[in-house]
Amino acid sequence: MRMTDIIEKKRDRIELSDNEIKYFISGVTDKSIPDYQISALLMAILLNGMNKREILTLTLEMAKSGDVLDLSPLSHTVDKHSTGGVGDKTTLIAAPLAAALGCTVAKMSGRGLGFTGGTVDKLESITGYKTSLDIPKFKEIAGKTGMCVVGQSGNFAPADKRLYAIRDVTATVNSIPLIASSIMSKKLAAGAQTIVLDVKYGSGAFMKTPEDAEALAREMVEIGNGAGRNTSALITDMDIPLGFAIGNALEVKEAVSVLSGKGPADLTELCVALAAQMYSCSFKRSESESKAAARAALENGSAFEVLKNAVSAQGGDEKLLTGEHSFAAPHGCKEVLAQNNGYIVHMNSELVGKAAVISGAGRETLNDKIDPSAGIVLNKKYGDYVNAGEPIAIVYGKKEKLDDAADELLNAYSFGDKKPENRPIIYKTVR
Amino acid sequence: MRMTDIIEKKRDRIELSDNEIKYFISGVTDKSIPDYQISALLMAILLNGMNKREILTLTLEMAKSGDVLDLSPLSHTVDKHSTGGVGDKTTLIAAPLAAALGCTVAKMSGRGLGFTGGTVDKLESITGYKTSLDIPKFKEIAGKTGMCVVGQSGNFAPADKRLYAIRDVTATVNSIPLIASSIMSKKLAAGAQTIVLDVKYGSGAFMKTPEDAEALAREMVEIGNGAGRNTSALITDMDIPLGFAIGNALEVKEAVSVLSGKGPADLTELCVALAAQMYSCSFKRSESESKAAARAALENGSAFEVLKNAVSAQGGDEKLLTGEHSFAAPHGCKEVLAQNNGYIVHMNSELVGKAAVISGAGRETLNDKIDPSAGIVLNKKYGDYVNAGEPIAIVYGKKEKLDDAADELLNAYSFGDKKPENRPIIYKTVR
Repeated sequence: MRMTDIIEKKRDRIELSDNEIKYFISGVTDKSIPDYQISALLMAILLNGMNKREILTLTLEMAKSGDVLDLSPLSHTVDKHSTGGVGDKTTLIAAPLAAALGCTVAKMSGRGLGFTGGTVDKLESITGYKTSLDIPKFKEIAGKTGMCVVGQSGNFAPADKRLYAIRDVTATVNSIPLIASSIMSKKLAAGAQTIVLDVKYGSGAFMKTPEDAEALAREMVEIGNGAGRNTSALITDMDIPLGFAIGNALEVKEAVSVLSGKGPADLTELCVALAAQMYSCSFKRSESESKAAARAALENGSAFEVLKNAVSAQGGDEKLLTGEHSFAAPHGCKEVLAQNNGYIVHMNSELVGKAAVISGAGRETLNDKIDPSAGIVLNKKYGDYVNAGEPIAIVYGKKEKLDDAADELLNAYSFGDKKPENRPIIYKTVR
Repeated sequence: MRMTDIIEKKRDRIELSDNEIKYFISGVTDKSIPDYQISALLMAILLNGMNKREILTLTLEMAKSGDVLDLSPLSHTVDKHSTGGVGDKTTLIAAPLAAALGCTVAKMSGRGLGFTGGTVDKLESITGYKTSLDIPKFKEIAGKTGMCVVGQSGNFAPADKRLYAIRDVTATVNSIPLIASSIMSKKLAAGAQTIVLDVKYGSGAFMKTPEDAEALAREMVEIGNGAGRNTSALITDMDIPLGFAIGNALEVKEAVSVLSGKGPADLTELCVALAAQMYSCSFKRSESESKAAARAALENGSAFEVLKNAVSAQGGDEKLLTGEHSFAAPHGCKEVLAQNNGYIVHMNSELVGKAAVISGAGRETLNDKIDPSAGIVLNKKYGDYVNAGEPIAIVYGKKEKLDDAADELLNAYSFGDKKPENRPIIYKTVR
């Protein structure tokens, strides 16, 4: 088999055989295929597409190109994946909710980069919380408390790592077959029997329209089911930041408020829906029954119990969650005042995310250090009426960063005379 | 400017600005752009195309990426380029014809590789002929005799060299914008004011159909004229080998027979047409007047005089051309006998070319050594009737190679009951 023949076929819109895809991924993994041939094929895939069989084979080959986690000793294992957003602390809420219903959420999670945050960074704002555990300990905690969230370790889907690095510098990121196979290869290698995806659209998401998000979601659900995992996806709005808090400790506190029944409506609704999907797919229960069960786990406090136990099992100070201890105080804060009267008719979530990065809550590059107490708490969001001079948000962080962060945040808001239409948080479910 | 943005634009079918193309070619030349970004852009160009302006800018930038030959001290400079074929000795005939009419053919020519031959190899079968001269000597001979043909030297269009090496291993050769800009960048750098292209189609050519050859020819003519050179192209048949001789000394002898008025009809017609184009474009004369002049230069022996003078000026033994001296005798020869009765209804010229390579007349790889006396002389061609057992060709070369070459040659012939239609050698002229 020759790589040039494989490129030529895809260039000429001829579908690749399973053996050709295997040859390709094996050469990506063992580095026998050079970067320039990989990028030529990636561009041909981006422009000429792949059919369902090609995408499934590509994903399966990438999934087994490195370590594969064996979660079979655990029951009802569930993974949850978000395509990334601003203020997205759903794992901190949906995972304990699902665990309270009997699921086992043994999950490797990512760090934040650019304008989106990462669950591991948020958890590390809890004093003592260890995000790197060895695999036996990871499984033991998951089995005992129902959830365990750690950082990515090991050599999962190395073929995807190499492909992604090349896609990133050759304008070949933006392809549904390549995005879907990249995400799903890592999810398949992570071993859970059920996979629930939160595919976001809007100004704070990678996909800008619900239609694009749905196309990606359908591709991923098809891959997951094709690989024998229970897979479903929610298509959700990320045109507005999720909840009011953006920043690591700030988001942990907001997650606790949701689990105490006092959280923002949009965030609560989404987390209940995600947990219901996790439970419904894993236990084969109806969606309405699952939703009621998830809401009950929130209201009766059992989910909050799970989170406290899991945090404590991973070395974290659970008293930070109950309010008996306090998170480290931010270095400073600044009120952001509205410049106009009017309704907030649009929020550019990407700019809100960038303002949070400026405050110290995120990273521009992988080596940047995060300030766990930095971030933003919004007072006013999309649809609210504000008067000029009224505080619409508070920015937390080192004093020298507050002005820049506040300026960037103001750029995110657009005002108008008419109250804008309500935006539902959940656009669609794909199973 | 960032290379990823340039790839992204071409990926999304947005045309590239002149500055973006300049940035790309400058980065190809100074190696600041890595192979994998180049191959991604090449695939995007292959699949999404380029408009006339983009192709012209690309070609001009490639042309000036290295040395540029200044032929301005010479008058009526003319270059001729063939896209390559089997038995293509047209330069040896058309160049002296055009020179006899007042053109100056100062030409750098290539070596053969694979199933196509190279003019420089053919000329080197003439004892003493020097194909590497310094530039002043090259121009001096061209000025004095009207023609000088040497091998490629110097650093012409290095951007094209790098691009071609990448295209060759990434299935991105087959793109009209890329083929046209590659050929024309070298022609522009070679400095002649008039460029006549011989674009071939058929089984012995890169382009398989006259339509594809015409599309390539139109693109190249447009580039040449856009760059201020008088450019025209003949679209010519290479489904059948040109003339009867394939192999270096054999082809020189056939060229002499054409210049003596005793050559094969197809080859004579094509060379007269090419020389007429060269003269017509350079002196702005009508095509019919030019054709008559070219035929006269053949018939009155003035073109043969030019060739003898040019060969002698480049150190070659002109007595080999007049028959006073003899070319080195081939090591051996073998008659190839027809296996069937019937008309020759098809000849696969690529296989004929491969048979010639096997005989020792060509190269498989750049480092192979050529046997100047080896090759094939066809007795029977397309349209001829043959009886089984009749010799259809003679193969020349080292004894141990003759059987394999003869077998390959037999594979090239197809026989049938009906005399096939005549194939005109010239399909179209593009100016």
